[in-house]
Amino acid sequence: MKTYRFGIVGYGNLGRGVELAVQQNPDMELKAIFTRRNPQSINAKYPAYSIDELHKFRGLLDVVILCGGSAQDLPEQIEKVACHFNTVDSFDTHASIPRYYEKVDAINRVHGTLSLISAGWDPGLFSMLRLLGLTLMPTGKGYTFWGKGVSQGHSDAIRRVPGVKNGVQYTIPKDDALQRVRDGEEPTFAAADKHTRVCFVVAEENADRKEIEKAIKGMPHYFDGYETIVHFVDEKTLLEEHSKMPHGGVVVTTGKSANGNRHMMECSLTLESNPEFTSGVLLAYARAVARMAAEGHTGCKTVFDIPLGYLSPQDAAVLRKELL
Amino acid sequence: MKTYRFGIVGYGNLGRGVELAVQQNPDMELKAIFTRRNPQSINAKYPAYSIDELHKFRGLLDVVILCGGSAQDLPEQIEKVACHFNTVDSFDTHASIPRYYEKVDAINRVHGTLSLISAGWDPGLFSMLRLLGLTLMPTGKGYTFWGKGVSQGHSDAIRRVPGVKNGVQYTIPKDDALQRVRDGEEPTFAAADKHTRVCFVVAEENADRKEIEKAIKGMPHYFDGYETIVHFVDEKTLLEEHSKMPHGGVVVTTGKSANGNRHMMECSLTLESNPEFTSGVLLAYARAVARMAAEGHTGCKTVFDIPLGYLSPQDAAVLRKELL
Repeated sequence: MKTYRFGIVGYGNLGRGVELAVQQNPDMELKAIFTRRNPQSINAKYPAYSIDELHKFRGLLDVVILCGGSAQDLPEQIEKVACHFNTVDSFDTHASIPRYYEKVDAINRVHGTLSLISAGWDPGLFSMLRLLGLTLMPTGKGYTFWGKGVSQGHSDAIRRVPGVKNGVQYTIPKDDALQRVRDGEEPTFAAADKHTRVCFVVAEENADRKEIEKAIKGMPHYFDGYETIVHFVDEKTLLEEHSKMPHGGVVVTTGKSANGNRHMMECSLTLESNPEFTSGVLLAYARAVARMAAEGHTGCKTVFDIPLGYLSPQDAAVLRKELL
Repeated sequence: MKTYRFGIVGYGNLGRGVELAVQQNPDMELKAIFTRRNPQSINAKYPAYSIDELHKFRGLLDVVILCGGSAQDLPEQIEKVACHFNTVDSFDTHASIPRYYEKVDAINRVHGTLSLISAGWDPGLFSMLRLLGLTLMPTGKGYTFWGKGVSQGHSDAIRRVPGVKNGVQYTIPKDDALQRVRDGEEPTFAAADKHTRVCFVVAEENADRKEIEKAIKGMPHYFDGYETIVHFVDEKTLLEEHSKMPHGGVVVTTGKSANGNRHMMECSLTLESNPEFTSGVLLAYARAVARMAAEGHTGCKTVFDIPLGYLSPQDAAVLRKELL
C-alpha cells in the first residue's frame, strides 16, 4: 500500500481527532504535530514541534492538515503553510468561503502547491449532498437541518453572558418543519423556523437566573427570533451529561420530474463526536490531495473538485468491483 | 450558458425519461433519438433516426446516452457507439461491471473517446454513498437496502410462470433488519434477510392459483429463500394500482472512531418513477462527460472518477458560494 506522510498544525479537538483517525487509516503517517504552544507541553502520541520549525519539514510531508479555527487561525496559518506544503483544512465560515478560496488559490499559484479547503461534514459531505440533490432534481428544492448537536459558537455565546459560569447549547431540528419538507411541500423557511435552541446553563452563585435567561433569549443573531429553551443545571450535571460533542444533521432534496412524479433524497448524519468524524473526513481528503499533488495538480480545490475515488485507499479496480 | 448536444440510443422507459429530463436541463440539447425500430413509428418530441445512421452524426454530438438494457443491448451497442462518440450508460449488472469496464475502456483507448458507465442511482448515486460511508468510517460497515419498489427482473420472472397472465413484484426492505443496522449492531445478512418480496399476480382463467404461488415462491435465485407474499388481483386492479415504476432504497454506514464514539450516515431515495429519476442522473453525467471530453479526457470512467462540480450546470464560483 502506498503511504502518505502528513503533519498537522494545531492540537485542539480536531488535532486530537486526527491523531485518533490515523489509527484507522494505516496508509496515512502522522509525522509531526506543529503547535504555537511549547511543544514539550503537548501530551501527544506523535512528535510535537514549534510551528516556527514547520519550514524545516519542506519535502518531508506530502500534505499538512490545518486543525485550527476558521475565525482567527486558518486565515493566518494558511499563509505560512501553503507556501511550503499542500494543505487540507476545514474552513467553515460559509459566508467567507469565496474570499478565503481566492486567497488560498493565489498562494497556491505562486508556490505551486495544492490546497483543499472547507472539508468536513458541513461544509464538506453535506455540500456534496446538496449539490447532488439539486443537480439530479434541477427544479427541486434543497434543505439542510443541523443537529441534534452542540454548537460551539452558541455555547461560547452563552458563556459570555454575565452571571453564567458554564453552558452548552444544542441545536435541534424542528420535527414539524422537517416533516413538511419530507411531505414535498417545498416550504420557505427563515433559519429560526427550522431549529430549536436548547441551552444548559450553570449560573454563578447569587446570579439572577431570570436576567440570564432574558439575556440569552434576546441575544441578536444567536438566539433572538429562535425558539430557545434554557435549563439551569449544576456544574456536575453539565460536565457529566453535556461534555460530549455530538452533532449531525439532515440534507433533504425534493423534486418532481417534468411528468409530475415526485422524488426525494434524504441523507442524515448522527455523530457522537463531531471532531472525531470530521477528522476522518480530513484524512480522506489529505490522501486525495497527496495523490493529486503527485500527479501535478496545483491550486485551491474544494470537495466539488475531487473525484471520490481519490478519497479511498482502495485501488480503482477494487472499488469498481466491490462498491460500484 | 454553454450548451451540450447529445443523442440517445433506445426509446424505452429510460429514453422517454431522458426526453422528459431535458425539459429541466436547458443546457442539454437532445439532437437525435436512435432506434432499432422504424424511426417513423417512434412517437417522440425529438427527431428519430435509424441506429444505422448514427455514424453520420459524428462530430455533431458531444455525447450519446445509451438507454438500453444491460443484459443484451448495452454490451452490443457500446461497440458501435463508443468508437464514434463519447458515451454515458446505466449498465447495472453489478457482477459484470469489471468486465464491461475493461471492454469499454479498450474501445475508448483505440478511438480516443470518453465513456462513463453505470450511472444511475444504483449503481451510481448509491455507489458513491457506499464509498463515502466506508472511506469516512474505515472500520465501519455498510448496508444497502432496496425498495420499496418494483423490480423489473422479478416482475418478468413472475410473468414467465405458467398460468400467469400479468404480474408486478415489489421489493420491500425488512424494517427489523434496517433497525438493527441503525442500532449499530453491524449484523451479517444474507440477501434474503434484508428484503421481503410482494407479488401482485393476475392468473389466467382456470389456472391453479396454488400451483402458481408454489412455482413463484420456489423459483431459485429470484424468490427461493425469501419471504415472499403473493396476492392475486384482477387485471384492472393491476393496471390501475401497479403500473407506476416507483423505487428507492437506503444506504446506511455505521462506524466508530478509535475512541469508541459511534457515527452513522444514512441516505435514502424515494422515487415515484425509477426511470425518470435515473434519466436525471444520466443527463448530469452526460454534461460531465461532454465537459471532460472537451478538456481532453479519454477512456472509461465511473461515478468514482468524476468531480461532482462537473455534474452541475452552475459555475464553480457559484457552487462554492451557494452550496459549499
